[in-house]
Amino acid sequence: MDIRPSLSPASETPLYRQLADYIRHLIASGGLRAGDRLPPTRELANQIGLNRTTISAAYAALEAEGLIKGEVGRGSFVSSAAEPGAKHVEWAAALTRMPAMPTRPTLSRESVRIDFTSSRPSSSLFPLEEFQGCCREVLESAELSRLLQIGSPGGYEPLRRWLFEAAVEQGYAHASDGILITNGCQQAIDLLRRALVRPGDKVAVEEPVYPGLRNAFLESGAELMGVRMTREGVDADALRAALDGGARVVVLTPSFQNPTGATIPEARRETIAAMARNAGAVVIENDLYTGLRYRGKAAPRLKAYDADVILAGSFSKIAFPGARVGWIIGPKPLIARVTELKQVADLHTDQLSQAFLLRFAESGALARHMERVVAAGRDKLDVLERACERHLAGCRYAMPEGGMNLWVELPAGLEAAALRTLAQQAGVDYLPGRYFTVSQPLDQALRLSFAGLEPARIEEGIEVLGTLIRKAGAAGDETLEPEPALV
Amino acid sequence: MDIRPSLSPASETPLYRQLADYIRHLIASGGLRAGDRLPPTRELANQIGLNRTTISAAYAALEAEGLIKGEVGRGSFVSSAAEPGAKHVEWAAALTRMPAMPTRPTLSRESVRIDFTSSRPSSSLFPLEEFQGCCREVLESAELSRLLQIGSPGGYEPLRRWLFEAAVEQGYAHASDGILITNGCQQAIDLLRRALVRPGDKVAVEEPVYPGLRNAFLESGAELMGVRMTREGVDADALRAALDGGARVVVLTPSFQNPTGATIPEARRETIAAMARNAGAVVIENDLYTGLRYRGKAAPRLKAYDADVILAGSFSKIAFPGARVGWIIGPKPLIARVTELKQVADLHTDQLSQAFLLRFAESGALARHMERVVAAGRDKLDVLERACERHLAGCRYAMPEGGMNLWVELPAGLEAAALRTLAQQAGVDYLPGRYFTVSQPLDQALRLSFAGLEPARIEEGIEVLGTLIRKAGAAGDETLEPEPALV
Repeated sequence: MDIRPSLSPASETPLYRQLADYIRHLIASGGLRAGDRLPPTRELANQIGLNRTTISAAYAALEAEGLIKGEVGRGSFVSSAAEPGAKHVEWAAALTRMPAMPTRPTLSRESVRIDFTSSRPSSSLFPLEEFQGCCREVLESAELSRLLQIGSPGGYEPLRRWLFEAAVEQGYAHASDGILITNGCQQAIDLLRRALVRPGDKVAVEEPVYPGLRNAFLESGAELMGVRMTREGVDADALRAALDGGARVVVLTPSFQNPTGATIPEARRETIAAMARNAGAVVIENDLYTGLRYRGKAAPRLKAYDADVILAGSFSKIAFPGARVGWIIGPKPLIARVTELKQVADLHTDQLSQAFLLRFAESGALARHMERVVAAGRDKLDVLERACERHLAGCRYAMPEGGMNLWVELPAGLEAAALRTLAQQAGVDYLPGRYFTVSQPLDQALRLSFAGLEPARIEEGIEVLGTLIRKAGAAGDETLEPEPALV
Repeated sequence: MDIRPSLSPASETPLYRQLADYIRHLIASGGLRAGDRLPPTRELANQIGLNRTTISAAYAALEAEGLIKGEVGRGSFVSSAAEPGAKHVEWAAALTRMPAMPTRPTLSRESVRIDFTSSRPSSSLFPLEEFQGCCREVLESAELSRLLQIGSPGGYEPLRRWLFEAAVEQGYAHASDGILITNGCQQAIDLLRRALVRPGDKVAVEEPVYPGLRNAFLESGAELMGVRMTREGVDADALRAALDGGARVVVLTPSFQNPTGATIPEARRETIAAMARNAGAVVIENDLYTGLRYRGKAAPRLKAYDADVILAGSFSKIAFPGARVGWIIGPKPLIARVTELKQVADLHTDQLSQAFLLRFAESGALARHMERVVAAGRDKLDVLERACERHLAGCRYAMPEGGMNLWVELPAGLEAAALRTLAQQAGVDYLPGRYFTVSQPLDQALRLSFAGLEPARIEEGIEVLGTLIRKAGAAGDETLEPEPALV
């Protein structure tokens, strides 16, 4: 604790008394605690530019009050009597804790040139000038003052209308639905679990799963049931087993799931929706990646098959995740409850970003940007596919038809966390599979988020990984023992 | 349910079959349900521009499949056999519920000219041009692309630093503290209750209290203990009783509390902080209104007396509540936990608004705006005081020294919810006291939020209320029976 009093030489109170008052305050406020050593008088005198006798007088006054105690040859200490009944907060006991789950591994940004760790859009594609123009229009509009005033928990009305009408046109919002604007899709998930899950409720999620989704449901005290993923999305038998086992809520990402990239084919969608409906379970459809289809034919959303499905979406995977705007579209009673919870959570979503993104969407710039993102994604996926064929021969993977992620299973005997250390040394980073667990180890798998990288980086990164995997396979297991720091 | 198929006359599939497919899909998706009546063939034919025989053929095909059933003289209905095992979500059972507390009364905006219901800053004082300039600087800066990309859960680093340094300079942030940027002060409260409260924990809050704060703690399953408010802030004896009764967390608004406007005098602050500390309770200091002092001398924050106090703040009561930026300053272990929860809640706060508000603060515009807001608040408070002296003679109230709210207790026999109906008819609105309850009825009190109104409106509004109160008092109680619609 630094002793840096602000003293007034002009004051009627003598300097030594001002200093003593200051130190008394430090003790009272917990800045100095029982047993703390005060600086020697000579040192403090030099430090704060006072005469040494002034310091000694202040210490003597405090000692007379019983607040500090001089010990011959050792200096002056804050007396334990100074704060007789005082307790300090035991933070470890005071704080709630996340149930034990693998936390995000530390990212070693410095040495990493090719970063496959983050499922985010490519900044180099951001149409900055178009966006600036949209922002300027909003800032210069007569509406600015109203946007800066407190708004409505449900969201900015013109944006709500625009999004809802788009959803009706695309056939997945029904007359029985409403909409809530959220602070991104993550908040959509967080509000839904607050609206739907009581402690002990069984919730079926995909396994592997996006950890932000898993962690939100864990905070409600849900009992998570991991439903095995296949190349064609969630496994129907495993889903039926979870429903038979009592899952009340089912969270599905039908298109380009994070982390596997898998998509439920159109022919299976109605069956999956009907299965949950017939079991009386609530379905949450994570619609984050649907627009990012690079190959194949678009499939209707699950919500198009069943009006009771709740849809969570966002602009974030297409454009500007730094501006936090997402939404929930679902049956009106559900929307009424999440809107109530939204007010408790943060009153309402930032209005400037809502207006900026609406302008961006209405102006046609969003649709143009989407086309560029999809075209770029197609190139990236092509490069990724060729690179994998060339370099990851010993691995198992299924090319996605869109989205941002590829899931890779390493050859037997290799472990993704251990390989990562070698990859980082070679300038490449990714997230090990165990980060996406519900109950399986997933130690042999890893996620490659390719959408934020340039094609040449993707190619280079896969080549580096392929070389490491071949070498590690040849060297045998012993070089791949996980290092303690990673676990 | 509207029947609006999109049919292709060029398709190989005959039109009647396309229409039948479409209706089959509506039934499968829940858009049409068992027992729903289909439109008469003539009506649907006109509506969608098809020949009536085409409609009849589609209905006949569906009837052959058992999906619909014609009833002579009544029309065609969706057969109950069409969705044999289908269940629909019972939303009333599926949704979590807020514990029973008075909900915000309906606001009848149309007839209301003078609206005392909202504790928010005056839009007419917003320095729009200065703010536009700050936004433009951010939008034209090289940083824009980075702001639009995914950010950090802790917040935008330059804003964190600016806020933390300001807090250190003002003596209430300590070396042991950290900071988290939140989506406004309401989210600060929401994250703190997620970090600190387990179901059944006792939490002491002021009574009357801001309902957004009360509702957040109720969502954690807290047992709320209402601590009586006095003209000098929270009552020390009542606080001691709550601490002795086991309160683990204490939430205090030391300056210009909402709804009472009361402030803890400087001389009592250290004692209040020490009382909670000695009981081992965690103190949350709601710092929302501190900057809005119109009279008297500023007092140090509670956190200046005790480093363990957690502070929740925001720009929202000074400037631009539509841009959602707030913060938590508190001991590092607490900040680590709320940052983890922030990531679960919504990843991070909107980065554009963080950068805009930082620019607004750094440029000096915030300080200039603050001066204007305080000067205007002083005028409003003077007008309010004179108007109350003139018109509210029979009421009890204590003029605040700042903030946005005045708490008024009506003469015996008058009831604030009933009086409100008369006030609304006269064009004036306010919130009845019961909305701010923890466990007391508070039926005789009301909150007047004056800071968002022009002085002339304040004067006029108080005169209207005074006249109504005098009349109601003279008329006796029977005119003031609460109307069912209000309760």
